[in-house]
Amino acid sequence: MPKPTIEPRLPKGMRDFLPAEMLKREYVFGIVRDVFHIFGFEPLQTPVLEMNETLMGKYGEDAEKLIFQAQHPGGKEELALRYDLTVPLARVVGMYPNEITLPFRRYQLSPVWRAERPQRGRYREFYQCDADIVGVSGMQADAELISLVVMALRRLGFKQFAVKINNRKLLTAIGQYAGLEGQLLGELYRSIDKFDKIGADGVREELAKRGIPANVSEKVLKLVIADVPRKDKLDFLDEVIGSLPTAQEGLRELREMTAFIEAANVPAENYEFDFTMVRGLGYYTGPIFETAITEPNLGSVSGGGRYDDLVGLFRGESLPTTGVSLGIERIIDLMDILNLYPAHIDGTVVETFVTVFSDTTRAEAVKLAAELREAGVRTELYLQDKNVGKQMSYADKKHIPIVALLGEDEIAAGMVKLKRLKDGQEISVLRQKVADGVRSLLNLN
Amino acid sequence: MPKPTIEPRLPKGMRDFLPAEMLKREYVFGIVRDVFHIFGFEPLQTPVLEMNETLMGKYGEDAEKLIFQAQHPGGKEELALRYDLTVPLARVVGMYPNEITLPFRRYQLSPVWRAERPQRGRYREFYQCDADIVGVSGMQADAELISLVVMALRRLGFKQFAVKINNRKLLTAIGQYAGLEGQLLGELYRSIDKFDKIGADGVREELAKRGIPANVSEKVLKLVIADVPRKDKLDFLDEVIGSLPTAQEGLRELREMTAFIEAANVPAENYEFDFTMVRGLGYYTGPIFETAITEPNLGSVSGGGRYDDLVGLFRGESLPTTGVSLGIERIIDLMDILNLYPAHIDGTVVETFVTVFSDTTRAEAVKLAAELREAGVRTELYLQDKNVGKQMSYADKKHIPIVALLGEDEIAAGMVKLKRLKDGQEISVLRQKVADGVRSLLNLN
Repeated sequence: MPKPTIEPRLPKGMRDFLPAEMLKREYVFGIVRDVFHIFGFEPLQTPVLEMNETLMGKYGEDAEKLIFQAQHPGGKEELALRYDLTVPLARVVGMYPNEITLPFRRYQLSPVWRAERPQRGRYREFYQCDADIVGVSGMQADAELISLVVMALRRLGFKQFAVKINNRKLLTAIGQYAGLEGQLLGELYRSIDKFDKIGADGVREELAKRGIPANVSEKVLKLVIADVPRKDKLDFLDEVIGSLPTAQEGLRELREMTAFIEAANVPAENYEFDFTMVRGLGYYTGPIFETAITEPNLGSVSGGGRYDDLVGLFRGESLPTTGVSLGIERIIDLMDILNLYPAHIDGTVVETFVTVFSDTTRAEAVKLAAELREAGVRTELYLQDKNVGKQMSYADKKHIPIVALLGEDEIAAGMVKLKRLKDGQEISVLRQKVADGVRSLLNLN
Repeated sequence: MPKPTIEPRLPKGMRDFLPAEMLKREYVFGIVRDVFHIFGFEPLQTPVLEMNETLMGKYGEDAEKLIFQAQHPGGKEELALRYDLTVPLARVVGMYPNEITLPFRRYQLSPVWRAERPQRGRYREFYQCDADIVGVSGMQADAELISLVVMALRRLGFKQFAVKINNRKLLTAIGQYAGLEGQLLGELYRSIDKFDKIGADGVREELAKRGIPANVSEKVLKLVIADVPRKDKLDFLDEVIGSLPTAQEGLRELREMTAFIEAANVPAENYEFDFTMVRGLGYYTGPIFETAITEPNLGSVSGGGRYDDLVGLFRGESLPTTGVSLGIERIIDLMDILNLYPAHIDGTVVETFVTVFSDTTRAEAVKLAAELREAGVRTELYLQDKNVGKQMSYADKKHIPIVALLGEDEIAAGMVKLKRLKDGQEISVLRQKVADGVRSLLNLN
């Protein structure tokens, strides 16, 4: 085979995950999957390539420019790489009415592709992590999702965070109350959505620029950013706009939902109402939620809400659905920033490195590795011909916690020497007990 | 939102995995990953989209017609969906010389795309599962891979299988001995490779058709299908062709390799020499191996071998590499055929279904679900308004093993009733001990 040097390159916005990074990702994925299972969500997987017609018309023109098309020589189908996990869910629900029992609780943890301008923290291939409940109109479903997000973030190690809760119906009612609808209502929410970043004065300025009269802005702002104690927030809205039917419905939904959240023992510090929270102008039809890491203020790590129209699209009917998406790429980055990875997620899967003293002892080293592996210890066996010193440096460089030393004396005595590299602690154990020895050294953190 | 019915369709050769199927796949993936970790292989992940130039020129013209190209509106890069996991490995090894310490043991368990004509058991998106050791020329590396395959198949539940071992160097030497080289040698091996399917007479016929003289065919066939006891197979070859340098090298390699396999306690029934096994005419340069389920005869589930030239392609140097690929899609199918999935892989992740008796008891049901979940029990909470009978049918239809019943009497008494659906067994447990109760019912299989 000829050996020209080909320059190894990655496409724009794409990433390789080398083992150290993969282990962190797998750690996060593992916890999140466990929590999904604990809440009874079932795994679903759809193919990366969808029919182009399945995706088109669902995301809006600007988004559709970002979809990757795919084709093979002579191929007749127009294909595209999936852009999110929600439209594929809708297709699946439409396609297998007999196999899927409603309510359908599914999660999917998979990459999606968007040809966005790459920038810090934004990639063209990235994972999404969605849990949705299809077929339940009651607020218990929405409450389940809040509990799920809180447990997932707690188990990952996040401490100070809050799920902000609002309802699209209340936003609509507030618009009615202020005399705004259609495009102007959209402008209003786009500005209010920035309240976190630009404050009340910033929002006022933006609203003025967009042609919304100051008295209208004030009316709305008073309502959505009023400094009212947590427990009185819904009542306060009720007093002002409670006579509007849309407001009544929205308030009833949030009262029901929070009653269920309380019953589920979700700590009060982990959720709150926030009427400035808008979640874009997307397909949501009821309660919406967004979770922010509050201390330090690191922004949003999860969002979701009720969207009763999209999932039925491929069945020609409306199917009540509520869902939540964990910003899994952001979470993975924040785990690093906040130092939440446990110490053993340290660059390698290997727990023990079996050294080889000489060609005479090599066969016994192979046997020892086989014994450790049979006992379930993650073991790397040295495969080359360097001296033990070099082998130790290799183990150290790879952050392998324990090295097994098996010289002729140990072999004769039926013993193994184990050395923990981070503090040099050594123990000698009986060969038959070597797996226990490794485990005891691993646990002595 | 308008609600037209869009016909939900999948592209040709693509599959959805609904939860019941996903759980089986995840079960297999989980065991395989565990075994990779036990052998010290580290996870690697590369993007689905590669530069077209990375893939082209590596697989041969026929294969390259099957590669899916990708593009987005206005995109300037020529991209393609990965066709296998080996070329991406080569790119990664070339791209990160400072981050990757040799020897590099990596596995990757990821989908690849090939626009082949779909047929039973063959898909256009399918998973590959590769473990490779880069940077070791010694036969210990090849022996490690055999041990790994045997442990993986055993832990999956396969009992009667054998890794067939051969060496490309021996195949070359046999050709020299028979006076064949180049294209004719290729024809020879293509025919011999079918020995399993068409027998000795079939091979003779094929060889005659391809213009290989009968006396040459006989000379080769005598050598490769000789009925020689296992332990004498290498010596038998040695006697006939041992004077050829390529044969000497090939025999030395297999002797070394099997010594290590024996030292690693691999059961003798799980590996054997098979000089008719060829592994296509690909990039292999030394030992090759292929694993067949023998009883019942269900064909190949794994293949691999040493290929010292490919992985250095992006570094402009030769890098000794040996690798093995588990035919993971085939394994998943065979697990069904041989009934190897454990009973609990039965269509749902859910262990316990919490029923709701009435609106009065609903809040307590929510609390009970939260308690079960906090204790790590996979719990589905009923979210709708049907009677308990209908709830039981739902749980039964979903194959949920245990149902929790919480009526007003149970609430008053601080108890929960648990019912195991497959045999109707019921127990009453203290509310604080409910997770233990579930676990005891789950284990009483």
